[in-house]
Amino acid sequence: MTERILVIGGDAGGMAAISQVRNRRPDVEIVVLERSDWTSYSACGIPYAVGGEVDPIERLQARTPQQFRDRHRVDVRMRHEAMAIDLDGRFVEVRAHESERTYRLSFDQILIGTGGSPVRPDLPGIDRALRAHTLDDAHRLLAELSGDPRTAVVVGGGFIGIEMAEAFVHRGLRTTLVDSGAQLIRAFDPDMAARIEHTLRDNGVNVVLGARVSAIDPDSVVTAAGRLPSDLVVLGVGTVPNSALAADAGLELGVHGSVVVDRRQQTSAAGVFAAGDCAQSMHLVSGRPVHLPLGTVANKQSRVAGINLGGGYATFPGVLGTAIVKVFNREVARTGLSESEAAAAGFGAVSTTIESTTRAGYYPGAEPMAVKVIAERATGRLLGFQIFGGVGAAKRIDSCAVALTAGFDAETLLQTDLAYAPPFSPAWDPVQVACREVLKLL
Amino acid sequence: MTERILVIGGDAGGMAAISQVRNRRPDVEIVVLERSDWTSYSACGIPYAVGGEVDPIERLQARTPQQFRDRHRVDVRMRHEAMAIDLDGRFVEVRAHESERTYRLSFDQILIGTGGSPVRPDLPGIDRALRAHTLDDAHRLLAELSGDPRTAVVVGGGFIGIEMAEAFVHRGLRTTLVDSGAQLIRAFDPDMAARIEHTLRDNGVNVVLGARVSAIDPDSVVTAAGRLPSDLVVLGVGTVPNSALAADAGLELGVHGSVVVDRRQQTSAAGVFAAGDCAQSMHLVSGRPVHLPLGTVANKQSRVAGINLGGGYATFPGVLGTAIVKVFNREVARTGLSESEAAAAGFGAVSTTIESTTRAGYYPGAEPMAVKVIAERATGRLLGFQIFGGVGAAKRIDSCAVALTAGFDAETLLQTDLAYAPPFSPAWDPVQVACREVLKLL
Repeated sequence: MTERILVIGGDAGGMAAISQVRNRRPDVEIVVLERSDWTSYSACGIPYAVGGEVDPIERLQARTPQQFRDRHRVDVRMRHEAMAIDLDGRFVEVRAHESERTYRLSFDQILIGTGGSPVRPDLPGIDRALRAHTLDDAHRLLAELSGDPRTAVVVGGGFIGIEMAEAFVHRGLRTTLVDSGAQLIRAFDPDMAARIEHTLRDNGVNVVLGARVSAIDPDSVVTAAGRLPSDLVVLGVGTVPNSALAADAGLELGVHGSVVVDRRQQTSAAGVFAAGDCAQSMHLVSGRPVHLPLGTVANKQSRVAGINLGGGYATFPGVLGTAIVKVFNREVARTGLSESEAAAAGFGAVSTTIESTTRAGYYPGAEPMAVKVIAERATGRLLGFQIFGGVGAAKRIDSCAVALTAGFDAETLLQTDLAYAPPFSPAWDPVQVACREVLKLL
Repeated sequence: MTERILVIGGDAGGMAAISQVRNRRPDVEIVVLERSDWTSYSACGIPYAVGGEVDPIERLQARTPQQFRDRHRVDVRMRHEAMAIDLDGRFVEVRAHESERTYRLSFDQILIGTGGSPVRPDLPGIDRALRAHTLDDAHRLLAELSGDPRTAVVVGGGFIGIEMAEAFVHRGLRTTLVDSGAQLIRAFDPDMAARIEHTLRDNGVNVVLGARVSAIDPDSVVTAAGRLPSDLVVLGVGTVPNSALAADAGLELGVHGSVVVDRRQQTSAAGVFAAGDCAQSMHLVSGRPVHLPLGTVANKQSRVAGINLGGGYATFPGVLGTAIVKVFNREVARTGLSESEAAAAGFGAVSTTIESTTRAGYYPGAEPMAVKVIAERATGRLLGFQIFGGVGAAKRIDSCAVALTAGFDAETLLQTDLAYAPPFSPAWDPVQVACREVLKLL
């Protein structure tokens, strides 16, 4: 009988593997089960579709199910959901939502790419809150916007919350961003988060911090800090892995209930792989397991899983928590450990923040930018970076991410031959200025 | 007697050392000899002052001699030129151009930061050709422009030549860029150089290749390809190290006559250091000595020399030949070895060029960009990158430069956690797409 590789989930965690499998194994049967109507779309693009910069929303779909079928000879089954995995019997219970039929599908190897779901707090009126996680969510948001709402409340001041707040301002809504914490976006240290907060306020977002939401009423969000008027409510309070299927099958779970995988993305069961928002990663700086539900990570993990499913050899070394976000006319990025994360991981760290410019100071269009660097006191080893600034500032985080991956100390990055010309950078790149300054603290 | 550290040359190669020396040695006397009227200015900014983007030209001066004196307690002697170094006697013969006096100045340690000079071909009429090397050159160019010239010829299609051609187009001159070679800017492979050439042509520059200049007449430049009308002629045909002083003192010279230095920037004589355009560097990928007269390299070398002169310990590991240039509305960058350089260094290499976009394809303002990667066939080790594209494309060369410094192979950079959000990048950064594609050739 033909060998069958089963992929559960038709988004990045599952689909990035497919070309890798097919390239190596023209002979195998590949079946994809996707419970929704969508495959392979850019969830990260949803705030821009909602804000109106990307139109129509269909542009977010990278490939249709039919394109997958044609290109990789894959049996893509839409609105088919894996209900249970029987590891001993080597089959999956599948529910076909269209026909309301349930059937058994045998497999030789399996890739679990079930993704994640937005955290859904148990609040009165929570059903009124929209999300920005799937294309269905995006369609619902656009439908609501066509009803001419005046006010919006975004619950949760993380990356998605900040992007959605900006989207609503673009749509002309009076917008509030509310978070229960003392600062926005806890991936950043408080000083950098404050810059983000000021940018949001400067652009008309009402930022409310330290206010836990207690209920979502038809016309307002109820918080400890009072009622926030809201024709529209969006939740962005985190993502949890969709790992119930894996757990029920007896697979080992780790951080936040994500599926534990080895370097080859194999789970605790042989021939069973996992990738994407449902899977755990290793943090390259802290050396600790983390759950980091990001599209880039999903793509990389899935590619590695696909190579291994196809009989090749590849490993996914881990993540840095690199992230980048546009906040109106500012750019923000981070990688590695923040000050508090470094302390939590047991590092004796020093940090400093420098102010520089995106281009040579005398060159037209030079904008201010700040770089924060965190380094190990005893060794100078770089632990993390945070960047805030104008156009051209934030993608500099990539050179920092490569340096962290390589285990550079501050002196080594300072000596690295980065690019300089007046339209692009001061003679010392701001990242290197930060390294130079942190060296003085060691 | 107070120890005296003598710095010959008041630009980057000399001056970046001074704060390092002073921080470590509050007690020493520091004397700087500068033969011109200028210290510490951005020579790289000259094309933009000539083009009119940077105005007034004084903005290119980072610090005045008086600022150096005040800030670091340095005896800066302007229009004083070191004529000879007597290593046994530990003194320098100094010519004070103002007073036309010559005197002896003893030293304990010395830093040679004499810089480089533009290559000056031995041609009839060469005195009519201007240069774009010093602030004096820039003032001369601006004076010529005020005489309302109609036509300009730039001789030499390297970085400075390309920048000057753009500057003249901005000033409304009919501009020709002539080079004796078969391609522009030999730091790039022919395919990428062709993109640069097309961009120049699209913006009105008359590019003439394979045409050696035989004379510079009052109204035209005479080449094998005919006469090129020229109210104004600028030379940009390379830089040679100003190493005669070092050579006459018996110091060892290397590539292109640059001063040989060890990892601490010390020359072949104890207590004698060299840094900047006069000094040799080590190429980190080829492992071979090179002469790379760039401001960033000068700053780094000079800082290292300053730390060592001050009794500290620092080393300058070497260079990658990283360079970046704006060509009208395109951005271009390179790092490491080109295909031909890799072959010359003995590498068995493969290369590929990918086409991607600066932002997610669906995001407004996404512009095409191309990344060329060169990798060692047997190991996948990354050897070099070349980038051509729209706004936001070229500074990505920095992540490549860090990866080359770390000795990454293509798989390692492909796995690195680079930043993604739709306004900044596709889900796979174009640099990683290039890595993914070159892996298929190994």
